[in-house]
Amino acid sequence: MRLSVLGSTGSIGRQTLELARCFDDMSIGALAAFGNIDLIEEQIHEFDPEICCIYNEEKAKELKERLGHSCKTRIVSGMEGLIECAVCEAVDTVLISVVGMIGIRPTIEAIKAGKNIAQANKEPIVCAGHIIMPLAEKMGVRLIPVDSEHSAIYQCLRGEKGNRAEKLWLTASGGPFRGRKREELKGITPADALKHPSWNMGAKITIDSSTLVNKGLEVIEAHYLFGVPADDIIVAVQPGSVVHSMVQFEDGAIKAQLGSPDMKVPIAYALHNERRMAYEGRKTLGFAELADIRFEAPDMDTFKGLRLGIEACRREGTLTTVYNAANEECVAAFLSGRIGYLDIADGIEAAMKAHRVTDDPDLDKIFEAEREARSFIRGLYNLDEDRGSRC
Amino acid sequence: MRLSVLGSTGSIGRQTLELARCFDDMSIGALAAFGNIDLIEEQIHEFDPEICCIYNEEKAKELKERLGHSCKTRIVSGMEGLIECAVCEAVDTVLISVVGMIGIRPTIEAIKAGKNIAQANKEPIVCAGHIIMPLAEKMGVRLIPVDSEHSAIYQCLRGEKGNRAEKLWLTASGGPFRGRKREELKGITPADALKHPSWNMGAKITIDSSTLVNKGLEVIEAHYLFGVPADDIIVAVQPGSVVHSMVQFEDGAIKAQLGSPDMKVPIAYALHNERRMAYEGRKTLGFAELADIRFEAPDMDTFKGLRLGIEACRREGTLTTVYNAANEECVAAFLSGRIGYLDIADGIEAAMKAHRVTDDPDLDKIFEAEREARSFIRGLYNLDEDRGSRC
Repeated sequence: MRLSVLGSTGSIGRQTLELARCFDDMSIGALAAFGNIDLIEEQIHEFDPEICCIYNEEKAKELKERLGHSCKTRIVSGMEGLIECAVCEAVDTVLISVVGMIGIRPTIEAIKAGKNIAQANKEPIVCAGHIIMPLAEKMGVRLIPVDSEHSAIYQCLRGEKGNRAEKLWLTASGGPFRGRKREELKGITPADALKHPSWNMGAKITIDSSTLVNKGLEVIEAHYLFGVPADDIIVAVQPGSVVHSMVQFEDGAIKAQLGSPDMKVPIAYALHNERRMAYEGRKTLGFAELADIRFEAPDMDTFKGLRLGIEACRREGTLTTVYNAANEECVAAFLSGRIGYLDIADGIEAAMKAHRVTDDPDLDKIFEAEREARSFIRGLYNLDEDRGSRC
Repeated sequence: MRLSVLGSTGSIGRQTLELARCFDDMSIGALAAFGNIDLIEEQIHEFDPEICCIYNEEKAKELKERLGHSCKTRIVSGMEGLIECAVCEAVDTVLISVVGMIGIRPTIEAIKAGKNIAQANKEPIVCAGHIIMPLAEKMGVRLIPVDSEHSAIYQCLRGEKGNRAEKLWLTASGGPFRGRKREELKGITPADALKHPSWNMGAKITIDSSTLVNKGLEVIEAHYLFGVPADDIIVAVQPGSVVHSMVQFEDGAIKAQLGSPDMKVPIAYALHNERRMAYEGRKTLGFAELADIRFEAPDMDTFKGLRLGIEACRREGTLTTVYNAANEECVAAFLSGRIGYLDIADGIEAAMKAHRVTDDPDLDKIFEAEREARSFIRGLYNLDEDRGSRC
């Protein structure tokens, strides 16, 4: 397969390229990153893609100069460039691992161009799942989630054609503050929150894991990916993160997918179209890892961000975008020390309350809701910096 | 589907008929039982099969008289009658839930007649798996296991075409004596052993569960059903019996099937050709059942019967039959108070040591090995009663 990696300098992107080194059947047709030109320069030399997008225009120029005229890779920039990488004729599969709503348009354009999608970017599904999923079906392309939880559910649903998923059990590690009460979370600093027990992740998603907003986003994602109502998605805290998620069927049977916390499994599964292959450094579970598996209901009073996500999922429309954008704005403000930890969920709640939902929104309405939510949070917490939509 | 139920008065048979009452698409073409004519008389009146076998000839005669000339169901007896029920033209699926090696010939004849098989009878696979599995493939019939563990593995393998099962995790409750040491098992009486924590079963299989010989038989069954080498089948004690078994794939991922201990799930799954349907009284798992899942390695020194099963599985040939037949003979002797609890595994071990293995045996060689093992145990423990092969 010939692959376009949108977000090749991030964690998922780098792991994808590691897999590309292992598997002879995988080559790279396109790469895209936000602005890390040091790393992408190396990637270009190693993988020799046709096209490369650096989203940041200045950085794109700098990279072009560095590479010189002899380099055959065409350097592009901005949203237009990102979309060029998504629809590039030479590739058949697009791994979308950019961060945030920036992935929405490239996802849609890639599907329209008939590409198979390995989806590691939550926001397109969270905000535009009602557009993307029917489009993928209409175009007859595969859209396989790369998130470990959604990949697990996807894997459990294989071989179950015609069997309805009655409930999804979406597992959660519970984050570093599991077991604490709301008042104990008041003084949490960014440094406290930037520890996560199982997965190696970026700062934004680490905070989201600690607030369980990440799990709220995943509930919405699962809802659109698998067509299961919000109230049939059970969030289950499983502290060791060994069970990646489960599906319950009409006969009462449950299927689960388990594994070590290694993103390469869902990446490889999505890229290889459900073919499983051993890869260098793959990890297996033994009795030690399976010695103690506990499932608990999450504490939705303390972790209000999760409850709000389920509410947004139930209501659909632009509310899922507001949930996501308000959270993004709040997390950025928390990480830069401008608001407190509990202000994150409080801010989301206020933004959701203030929003008047549009049903079945088109992209314009989605981005309008995004801008509205960001501006609401900036007003609420007196944040001056302009962080408008980049989409 | 029109069904033949061989063993309709046993636990699996009765549950199958309960399901037949729930599902409109299921009717009964044939019934067979050993000798419980009171129950089967009721079943005949309710389900109106074309043919019914009572294995015991005297009992068959008695039933015929009771039913009188007006009854349309043809009553047959013996192995010939059992096979008539297995190949009966009016049925498309045969549920084989007789107990012991008696199910070998009917399984083979049903497959030859092109029937789909729901296999609840371990012994045909344990003793003649090398004959039955290739035959089923050649005839293009489905053979779906009804055992909860093997059904779980079968379910986990759906949707994994082309993906090799690297390891099978066969779960075990551990039986009522889990945690005890060998010397603590010396004085165990039949009454002590006839308690099992999770499943409602007959006396023979309850003893087998306590000695873990049942798990040894299941290792052999899994080996033939799924083509996985003995040493890649991991027996894992999971005390709550919530995880019914698991499959590990080449990428390190594990798929598991979980559920309440209700045999109706695997029965319905096998009969409906993998279609899952809600049924009256079906049970689901909640946080309470999932609160504490632990996997432990079994103690194969104390439960030597399991180790011997794995050895028999490794060696194949007639040794699996010797393992099974020696165990049957020993358990019967234990239940009637003629030998001690630890004599069961010691007897199996001695019989296996004394046996000269024939590779790839035909049915004659299999039944010869059975007779030899039974006679060896009778000689070893001075048991006089003649319990020759009925097959």
